[in-house]
Amino acid sequence: MTLNITSLIQKNNTKIVLVVLDGLGGLPVNGKTELENANTPNMDRLARESACGLHLPVDYAITPGSGPGHLSLFGYDPVEFQIGRGILEALGLGVEVTKNDITLRCNYATIKDGIITDRRAGRIPTDKSRLITERLQSSIKSIGDVEVLFAPGMEHRFAVRLRFPNPVSTLHAMIDDTDPQKEGKAPLSPNPTTEEARPIAKVLEQLISAIASVIKDEDKANYILTRGVSSLPDIPPFYDRYGLKALAIATYPMYRGLARLVHMDTPTVEGSVQDEIDFLKKNYKDYDFFFLHVKKVDSYGEDGNFQGKSNRISEFDALLPQILELNPDVLMITGDHSTPALLKSHSWHPVPILLKSPYVLGGTCNAFSERECLKGELGIFHTIKLLPLALANSLRLKKFGA
Amino acid sequence: MTLNITSLIQKNNTKIVLVVLDGLGGLPVNGKTELENANTPNMDRLARESACGLHLPVDYAITPGSGPGHLSLFGYDPVEFQIGRGILEALGLGVEVTKNDITLRCNYATIKDGIITDRRAGRIPTDKSRLITERLQSSIKSIGDVEVLFAPGMEHRFAVRLRFPNPVSTLHAMIDDTDPQKEGKAPLSPNPTTEEARPIAKVLEQLISAIASVIKDEDKANYILTRGVSSLPDIPPFYDRYGLKALAIATYPMYRGLARLVHMDTPTVEGSVQDEIDFLKKNYKDYDFFFLHVKKVDSYGEDGNFQGKSNRISEFDALLPQILELNPDVLMITGDHSTPALLKSHSWHPVPILLKSPYVLGGTCNAFSERECLKGELGIFHTIKLLPLALANSLRLKKFGA
Repeated sequence: MTLNITSLIQKNNTKIVLVVLDGLGGLPVNGKTELENANTPNMDRLARESACGLHLPVDYAITPGSGPGHLSLFGYDPVEFQIGRGILEALGLGVEVTKNDITLRCNYATIKDGIITDRRAGRIPTDKSRLITERLQSSIKSIGDVEVLFAPGMEHRFAVRLRFPNPVSTLHAMIDDTDPQKEGKAPLSPNPTTEEARPIAKVLEQLISAIASVIKDEDKANYILTRGVSSLPDIPPFYDRYGLKALAIATYPMYRGLARLVHMDTPTVEGSVQDEIDFLKKNYKDYDFFFLHVKKVDSYGEDGNFQGKSNRISEFDALLPQILELNPDVLMITGDHSTPALLKSHSWHPVPILLKSPYVLGGTCNAFSERECLKGELGIFHTIKLLPLALANSLRLKKFGA
Repeated sequence: MTLNITSLIQKNNTKIVLVVLDGLGGLPVNGKTELENANTPNMDRLARESACGLHLPVDYAITPGSGPGHLSLFGYDPVEFQIGRGILEALGLGVEVTKNDITLRCNYATIKDGIITDRRAGRIPTDKSRLITERLQSSIKSIGDVEVLFAPGMEHRFAVRLRFPNPVSTLHAMIDDTDPQKEGKAPLSPNPTTEEARPIAKVLEQLISAIASVIKDEDKANYILTRGVSSLPDIPPFYDRYGLKALAIATYPMYRGLARLVHMDTPTVEGSVQDEIDFLKKNYKDYDFFFLHVKKVDSYGEDGNFQGKSNRISEFDALLPQILELNPDVLMITGDHSTPALLKSHSWHPVPILLKSPYVLGGTCNAFSERECLKGELGIFHTIKLLPLALANSLRLKKFGA
């Protein structure tokens, strides 16, 4: 049986900093991983005196998306709390999502005589797509009492948020995709698969038809296909669960969105990692927990750019002393998943972690790397145990049992 | 919560080879384990570039039988899917078992004036026992519409398969043993413990009485005791669960039987390990997944023959280059459990594993052994995670969540 951590929470004035180098874990190319290849004197020194290990965001063998990766870092079971595609798309485009909202991913498509001839409308340029989406927004503001928000995306993609007068649940969002997945077929209907979703599907039908009449004379983007209809998962707030007042510092909307799912404060931050660290310093006295997200490490991994990923890690290392100067009670440096340049994608490999606190063994690793972390005192463990470890190391967890 | 792997399966043309050196794990005698003592240059080299670790077939401290050991290697929870004793006995004797069958283990016994005087009929020689069992088969072909098959075993043991006109479930097999467990007592009745088992128990009573009248004049084997009445467990097929077309290559009927439980193809293979490898080569293009079973390692362990077990491991190592020539995308070499010669039996110790694929860290172990595998990137993990790891390493698992 699993213990309910919340019952053991005690508050104090400690500070916890979680640095997420997105996609940190890697695989060797010419014998070294990206992290082994990077110039990381500060993290190497920290690793020597920290608790190190490797963590599994979902489970052995499972490659996590960004959603599951971050939820587990925040201490939530990513299989229990699954985030719909539409929600993640909306979060990624910077759309605020509340309990009253249903979100969906949309594609512009080309239709002729009722048949989809191009599911991606010739991958129309982002600029062109944005203009069409803006035209939709100025023509369609609501369907009955449902407020409609259009969020432009890349190329043929955009997101829609439907805001209802009352809260909706996952049952309301059980609606089939209309994308037939193949050209040469008619678009499908947004069929509800629950009784609760029936009225929502009706709204969606009206929306699709309203959109079609606005864009019917477009050359390529004359129709839309919808996917991933979803509502917010019902996640207990981070503060209620862990007693930590939390600030998310992330320049990409998606990661602020993920933090907002668990009700962290998520002000807009722009600029470089240095700007993020400045933001951390400025707000340091006002929060207990800081999630600082460094995106570019993953981006270079996804591009298969080994040296680029390695350089981003080195750059972060050079900035690290500024965080250390704040002297947080617990500092964790890790990733939300691995993104080996070798695979050009997220992967299933466990993610290296160092946890600095006054209450660790230390002295088992010589550097911060996948292979050195194997010698660490944390072993290979499930990511969901990391937040409790941070709480323990900041003396925020009471004894269990007498 | 546990993720359903099946929802993430994607198919491709990769090949996965699982070599099971039965009972591989061992314990030191004069400082070295059987595996450390063996001459294994090929596996040592592989271990240096592979993902290594140790796996727990059931759990810490639990000594697995061959059934649980193999089921976990095949990715099935051995506590969820338990295999009845009668089924395992039948499989071990090469009996084909279908959904219409109930199987049981039997002992010849000596009865006098209704009292069991020897529960094993003086451990009559196997040859003698086989003759009696053949006589039973020629006298008893059916009980009503139930077809009866007798399978001769070692000494006083044999198995019986009852084939019914319709499928049976585990509820039909809930019937008590008739073995009183002590001499000087009357045999027990085959009592049904469910309503569904009542008619089956009736058949069993008639069978016992029919057998008794055939063998009543035998000197020692003049009665039988029955145990482990069981039906096939309801296991989802390997292909449905993992999308892998699988071939089992095993010379012992028991292991083909275990593979057949999960619907692998299980043609009869005879001869040496070299013959098994030839069979692998011949069928390599026709399957995705190959389970190659090497029995003798365990047999010598069970005999307490340390050097013999060690030699069997060395012999396999010498044949390994032939498997490497096939260049499988994922190659795993491990055991289904440990069988230390020191204990002359299966044991609870985790089992060394090496997993070769293009997507591993490697470089953490110097050889293939229990102690070197402790330094491996897989750590100590539950065997049931191994099949998912093979799928991940052959790029057959999609990302979980966006």
